[in-house]
Amino acid sequence: MLKIDPARLLKDLRHLRAFGANGPGVVRLSLSSVDMDARRWLAGRMNEAGLTATIDGVGTVFGRSRNAGPALLIGSHTDTQPTGGWLDGALGVIYGLEIARALAECEETRHFAVDVASWIDEEGTFSGFLGSRSFVGENVDGIVRGARDREGMLLADALQRAGLAGTPRVRVDETRHKAYLEPHIEQGGRLEAHGKSIGVVTTIVGIREMKLCFTGQRNHAGTTPMSIRRDAGAALVSFIARMDEAFRDIADADTVWTVGRIELDPGSFSVVPGKADMYLQFRDASAARLHAMDAALAALIRDFNAEGGVSVAMTDSEPPEAPVVMDAALQAHLADAAEALASGQWERMPSGASHDAQVIAHHVPACMLFVPSIGGVSHDFIEDTAEAHIVLGCEVAARAAATILRSLQA
Amino acid sequence: MLKIDPARLLKDLRHLRAFGANGPGVVRLSLSSVDMDARRWLAGRMNEAGLTATIDGVGTVFGRSRNAGPALLIGSHTDTQPTGGWLDGALGVIYGLEIARALAECEETRHFAVDVASWIDEEGTFSGFLGSRSFVGENVDGIVRGARDREGMLLADALQRAGLAGTPRVRVDETRHKAYLEPHIEQGGRLEAHGKSIGVVTTIVGIREMKLCFTGQRNHAGTTPMSIRRDAGAALVSFIARMDEAFRDIADADTVWTVGRIELDPGSFSVVPGKADMYLQFRDASAARLHAMDAALAALIRDFNAEGGVSVAMTDSEPPEAPVVMDAALQAHLADAAEALASGQWERMPSGASHDAQVIAHHVPACMLFVPSIGGVSHDFIEDTAEAHIVLGCEVAARAAATILRSLQA
Repeated sequence: MLKIDPARLLKDLRHLRAFGANGPGVVRLSLSSVDMDARRWLAGRMNEAGLTATIDGVGTVFGRSRNAGPALLIGSHTDTQPTGGWLDGALGVIYGLEIARALAECEETRHFAVDVASWIDEEGTFSGFLGSRSFVGENVDGIVRGARDREGMLLADALQRAGLAGTPRVRVDETRHKAYLEPHIEQGGRLEAHGKSIGVVTTIVGIREMKLCFTGQRNHAGTTPMSIRRDAGAALVSFIARMDEAFRDIADADTVWTVGRIELDPGSFSVVPGKADMYLQFRDASAARLHAMDAALAALIRDFNAEGGVSVAMTDSEPPEAPVVMDAALQAHLADAAEALASGQWERMPSGASHDAQVIAHHVPACMLFVPSIGGVSHDFIEDTAEAHIVLGCEVAARAAATILRSLQA
Repeated sequence: MLKIDPARLLKDLRHLRAFGANGPGVVRLSLSSVDMDARRWLAGRMNEAGLTATIDGVGTVFGRSRNAGPALLIGSHTDTQPTGGWLDGALGVIYGLEIARALAECEETRHFAVDVASWIDEEGTFSGFLGSRSFVGENVDGIVRGARDREGMLLADALQRAGLAGTPRVRVDETRHKAYLEPHIEQGGRLEAHGKSIGVVTTIVGIREMKLCFTGQRNHAGTTPMSIRRDAGAALVSFIARMDEAFRDIADADTVWTVGRIELDPGSFSVVPGKADMYLQFRDASAARLHAMDAALAALIRDFNAEGGVSVAMTDSEPPEAPVVMDAALQAHLADAAEALASGQWERMPSGASHDAQVIAHHVPACMLFVPSIGGVSHDFIEDTAEAHIVLGCEVAARAAATILRSLQA
């Protein structure tokens, strides 16, 4: 009978939390000294679990099962945000470790192959998703040479300092890796609001990020009548109102859009802004809806510029990221396991956040499982998940891992 | 026959322009080395004109007529903004110098007393209106000890460096100073738009400056559904829309309001802003209308906070400045002179910008005369006024000065 060990799971999660602990939270930036300590500890725990662990040439910790494939790969990340929580990423990696142990301890599953990964730099201290991108075969040499952290340190120098320069990089083996599972905290408040314990991810949403720059005429705020102003800030505000209306017509309940930053130039009480910038992001699980939002935005810009006065120009800040659909068969395994262990306590949902799974999914069928975040809080020291949910999530993931592996061997 | 000398006027204006010249503009910050050079030159020109010139303990250049009072005081400022124009302030001071000369050269007016002032720091390099505030008897000792420029230099140290420490400060003599005239460029585009050459100022508008701080909940921009967000930035944008509507209902054609700065916190693509600040300024010539706008704003804030979600709090950034009405009799002198020399080419108008006249007016009956600004541009290197307007403005001011002085002696 397959059974995870909740005490062992929680003990490892808490042990990992100590590397970079800061109050209830964690500061464990990729390739920092505490991050490397955590990676070496993790590799040791993998070896103790019977996996063959390595830290590869970019910093990914990879524990390979000694069993022959087909293998299920379970992974996430152990690096954190600058003000990170203790479970963001760490949860999925330690789930992988615990599931590998639990499967090995069970007569019926001990021949199954589970490889476990902690992908380097999911959070982008140097370059987001570096580990998973390298793993699927993207050429990251340019990133290694050019990427820097906030303090200006080159990734190449950080790897040198970590003793990883010249170490081989692990690569996906498409004859072995037949499925990928990434368990993760939800990082939002939906499961909690719905009173659910488990989320089965349908899609990782697509993202658009753009900057809109409004150009008017800078003027004295006392001597320039309203009637002749070309106020770039006022134009930006009215543009947002129109955009909200257009996006509301297109959106479903999961569509999100955010104006995260506004800058008026020169930015003083007494000057009518001559320039105004806004940073816009929108996300949706549907490629068609994202295209509709793109088109609505383009039409708004066209109309706005046709009116004269203040002009607006848009530039993409990041290349568009398309939605990534999770593998339907793997979703069914997760759903069956959730229904067996938490009947009625789970739901399907999109992931509004980005994950390594979206990189891996282009090469290996992939799925994700969510556990609730207390108060929906993440990327914050107070991020947390109820202990019962942590344990239940691992039980569901372990059960699904077993049925996935069984189906792979069939 | 009273007659100004246009060539002499323009020569002095151009000579003053050379102190701190930067392309077509001027950088002549209060008490800087070029500013002190300009003040010494100005004092010399005042002495040559028969005035008794001093540079006082805060830096004001004061040229006192040797004639007995009642005196007309003509003043403005020769310090500039960090990217200043050549006429902002300088025009009124050189007008005063030229009018003192012209009156002295005319048999009928040579006994009239015109005192001429260049008030220090109208532009607020250290503390705005320092010279006029000191002149009317405000205690500026605290400012002298505490005010600093952008580089952190104490005003007291700047005065020491300029050789002014310990020098007496000039004070208004209410038995002598019976009228104040401040000629100035308009700094807006109204005269130009109306095809007029002279503006007679009715009122210097009152000003309100406040900061509105919106507090919501910072959240992940991908995992937080629109329905549960408390987006401080979105709230700010919708508040501005409501405020615009409310202010439009109250405003007349001269009412102005400006959101000059918006800051969203933390200010990134991927985070729903938890805090948002806006800097608001509004100006009007009517105290009643300013009060109505205050009341409308307070009601909007009350309503907004009653709705829950995002809250908003307002703090005054500067004490409210009430509108300052120009003396009606002095306005009539300016209007008569304008009608005599530029029939149909002048109009009455409020001043949307602040001036030393608003400080002096509380102690001495005051008036202001405007000449057009090309393109309405000011506080910019390209600020300019047509030569014909510069000359006409001085002729009108001189004629009004003579009739004012005649009426004072009656």
